[in-house]
Amino acid sequence: MLDIYFILLLTVMIKNRDFIMMMMMYKTIMMVNNKAVSGGLEWRVRVADGSSSAVLVPESGIFERIWQGIIGLVFGIIRKVRNFFAKAWDVGVDDPRKIMHCLKVGVALTVVSLFYYMRPLYQGVGGNAMWAVLTVVVIFEYTVGATLCKSLNRATGTFLAGALAVGVHWVASQSGERFEPIILRSSVFILATSATFSRFIPVVKARFDYGAMIFILTFSLVAISGYRVDNLFNLAQERLSTIVIGGSMCLLVSMFICPIWAGQDLHFLVARNMEKMANSLDGCVAEYFKDSESDEESRKNFQGYKCVLNSKATEEALANFARWEPAHGNFSFRHPWKQYLKIGASLRSCAYCIEALNGCINSEILAPEFIKEHLSGVSTRLASHSSTVLKELAHITKTMRRSSTLDFAIEDMKSAVEDLHDALKSLPSQLEVDEKKTDPITQPTSIPLIEVLPLITASSLMVEITTRIERTIVVVNELASLAKFKPVKDKKTKQSKVTNKNRPDQGQDTIKTLQMV
Amino acid sequence: MLDIYFILLLTVMIKNRDFIMMMMMYKTIMMVNNKAVSGGLEWRVRVADGSSSAVLVPESGIFERIWQGIIGLVFGIIRKVRNFFAKAWDVGVDDPRKIMHCLKVGVALTVVSLFYYMRPLYQGVGGNAMWAVLTVVVIFEYTVGATLCKSLNRATGTFLAGALAVGVHWVASQSGERFEPIILRSSVFILATSATFSRFIPVVKARFDYGAMIFILTFSLVAISGYRVDNLFNLAQERLSTIVIGGSMCLLVSMFICPIWAGQDLHFLVARNMEKMANSLDGCVAEYFKDSESDEESRKNFQGYKCVLNSKATEEALANFARWEPAHGNFSFRHPWKQYLKIGASLRSCAYCIEALNGCINSEILAPEFIKEHLSGVSTRLASHSSTVLKELAHITKTMRRSSTLDFAIEDMKSAVEDLHDALKSLPSQLEVDEKKTDPITQPTSIPLIEVLPLITASSLMVEITTRIERTIVVVNELASLAKFKPVKDKKTKQSKVTNKNRPDQGQDTIKTLQMV
Repeated sequence: MLDIYFILLLTVMIKNRDFIMMMMMYKTIMMVNNKAVSGGLEWRVRVADGSSSAVLVPESGIFERIWQGIIGLVFGIIRKVRNFFAKAWDVGVDDPRKIMHCLKVGVALTVVSLFYYMRPLYQGVGGNAMWAVLTVVVIFEYTVGATLCKSLNRATGTFLAGALAVGVHWVASQSGERFEPIILRSSVFILATSATFSRFIPVVKARFDYGAMIFILTFSLVAISGYRVDNLFNLAQERLSTIVIGGSMCLLVSMFICPIWAGQDLHFLVARNMEKMANSLDGCVAEYFKDSESDEESRKNFQGYKCVLNSKATEEALANFARWEPAHGNFSFRHPWKQYLKIGASLRSCAYCIEALNGCINSEILAPEFIKEHLSGVSTRLASHSSTVLKELAHITKTMRRSSTLDFAIEDMKSAVEDLHDALKSLPSQLEVDEKKTDPITQPTSIPLIEVLPLITASSLMVEITTRIERTIVVVNELASLAKFKPVKDKKTKQSKVTNKNRPDQGQDTIKTLQMV
Repeated sequence: MLDIYFILLLTVMIKNRDFIMMMMMYKTIMMVNNKAVSGGLEWRVRVADGSSSAVLVPESGIFERIWQGIIGLVFGIIRKVRNFFAKAWDVGVDDPRKIMHCLKVGVALTVVSLFYYMRPLYQGVGGNAMWAVLTVVVIFEYTVGATLCKSLNRATGTFLAGALAVGVHWVASQSGERFEPIILRSSVFILATSATFSRFIPVVKARFDYGAMIFILTFSLVAISGYRVDNLFNLAQERLSTIVIGGSMCLLVSMFICPIWAGQDLHFLVARNMEKMANSLDGCVAEYFKDSESDEESRKNFQGYKCVLNSKATEEALANFARWEPAHGNFSFRHPWKQYLKIGASLRSCAYCIEALNGCINSEILAPEFIKEHLSGVSTRLASHSSTVLKELAHITKTMRRSSTLDFAIEDMKSAVEDLHDALKSLPSQLEVDEKKTDPITQPTSIPLIEVLPLITASSLMVEITTRIERTIVVVNELASLAKFKPVKDKKTKQSKVTNKNRPDQGQDTIKTLQMV
């Protein structure tokens, strides 16, 4: 229904009043038609002079059905187009850098096409200027790393294949007119086959896939054209120079106009994933122990771990492109991008546990209220401390600066684990005591385990998550030392370090004292 | 060390004896050098006449260091090359279809290059024959679906862009010499920008990404060339016809010489993943309750779930390509490929639980031996029944034939879950009884929960896995009805159906009886 009104509104805007009338009529007819079918309603037309009345029986002929079909089709198409533009709008609003990227592509293409429009430039590179246009369209990617990877691959592939093709062509031309086509054709077959095969090898696939394709392409083109074009060397050289022009144009635009670095994206993606995990953990436990229904916002928050589950491919692609990028921002050329993949993997292993924990959430809690309360406090505290650690790790990663509060947060988390252990240890005896209190006549019986099972499983999974977070801490620390994260600047921490040195065996106490301060 | 011997062996094979001598000398020198450095050893050379002896102090000059560096580099390169070829060999041995694919690419390229070599054909398509070669290199993909997707995208993109470019060119040529370049340039900018943006929209990205790129490419080329090439219509038409030649060549070779169907690959991938999950489940539980160390083979088997965790991207790509493929084998054109993605997702949700279960395996079992035994039997039985269900599902999916034994397997699994529940229910009381037996003097105390915690968590996860397997059963059944899987042929099942009809309220008993039969 809303669709129809939307269409009508649209139609008003384009001032096609006949169409509106038609649509309204159609709508009224359809509504009455429905009634007619269901209630056996008839239309009576009273002619102006009142002399006669005719009964119009609702007719569902072929014409009407076709008309309905056409209307349905038009509406369907309009709805699809509307959805499409709505999605497009969302894409643009979510990340305005994407719009910037599109403008950059337009700029690069327009500049390169100048080679065609301006006569002096045109004469310089000849009719092969189209290769420059082609290069821009094909290699201009979203991130600088991807563009660099593709352009280097393209240049190297073209150069190698061109050189090889010229060599093969020379050999072929030396071996007489009879063998020339045979040598050329078999060389194309052999090289195309082996280069295609190389694309299946993981190392090549990850880094040089595009280069291998361009190698096959250029070799085939040059080797085959060699049979016709006399000035072969010029062809190869012109092709290479136009590719260099197109490639350098892309790189210039990509690196100097609002650059989008794959490395930076990876960096923030991993940090954001840590934050999402922290929120999920908080949300998950809150959801479990809370009686009231959760609102939309918190539900959305605690589903964040699903992003982490599915981010492997993105992380790998970004890490692969990041290694091609020059130094930018806080990242040197040899920034340990691979370490981010390790962090990502360890975050995912946490996320698997949260997923399993999520399964427990959906099962009903049968345990008595006092046990639930007994465990809910420690569990919530453990979750909150674990998520603090994760947030701290996210902060360290994001700012690339070691934190003075991480150690405290870890200590808190560990003590929360101990508390949960204690709570679980004391559980059976406590149950008996409570039962005795409520009903002193009965013998001390323990509550069947099955009732507290989901609760215990959830607690146990929480502990497992903590273990996995500890592994994440290790890999983040590795990153901190590999990438030489800046040391802590905080004065308090320096003090604490001095204090720690003076009392090496009381380090933990110091930490606790400092925390209170 | 082994590397050096390998190199020596290689060298023998190429009969370069001087090189061997050199290498051996080098090796001896290196070994002695190491000794010399560590133990202060000296070399004494006794000259033939015995009159004098000179002490040779080990020298580590610049020359030697450079020499060592070069040797190290050469070895490094040789090792890398060797590894590379070893990997390539593995790729070929693992899947010989890949080699077939390479040969197919070679064949297609050779055939297309005939257009260049044969004069009559060459005159037909003109100098644009290179576009046919280019098309073959660019669109020939591993699976038929991917090739079809790319070729249709390329043809459509080229056609649309060509038509639009000719239109724009006509408008530009009508608007005077002054406005012509402005119109052309701004049209390139606007269309390139908007087409690039469309590539970010998920729907377009999944299916028409390549088409959008080709659209930009062709439009830019035709619009820009239009400024120079007089016979613009011919250019567009020739480009399209060569692309059609190249594309149809690819399709012919790809579909009629050992075709590799994306749909079939997806089908078997999902079925194989179910089998891997079944093996993992078996292996995981066996590993947990078994005292002895597991061997390499079983460890490899039970890591199979990791493949399932990481197969999302592959499944999505295959499903995306499969929808382009014509009917092949048992699959019709409108085979419900999307359903496989649902199955994949539900398998992954099982795999997450197995991952969490895997975490429990690594923690030590503190529980007393008798509790472990008490639970190990039921757990192993549940795991084995669950894996039977998964194997049965894999069989159904693979053969596309409904199974008569699936229902029995599900019943078994459900009763195993009940047994595990009972075992857990009886746990606390049993503990007390046993304790009393062993030590009759003490009061009946229950064992602290913490000791049985990992065991209970593992059991609870097993139950959760069963729940998720049940969801998998639902989606597989949906696939069976959507894809119209063949009915059961077994005579026994028909009998059982008849029996079931007669005694609708005793269905479960019938199943059990039939199972015994």
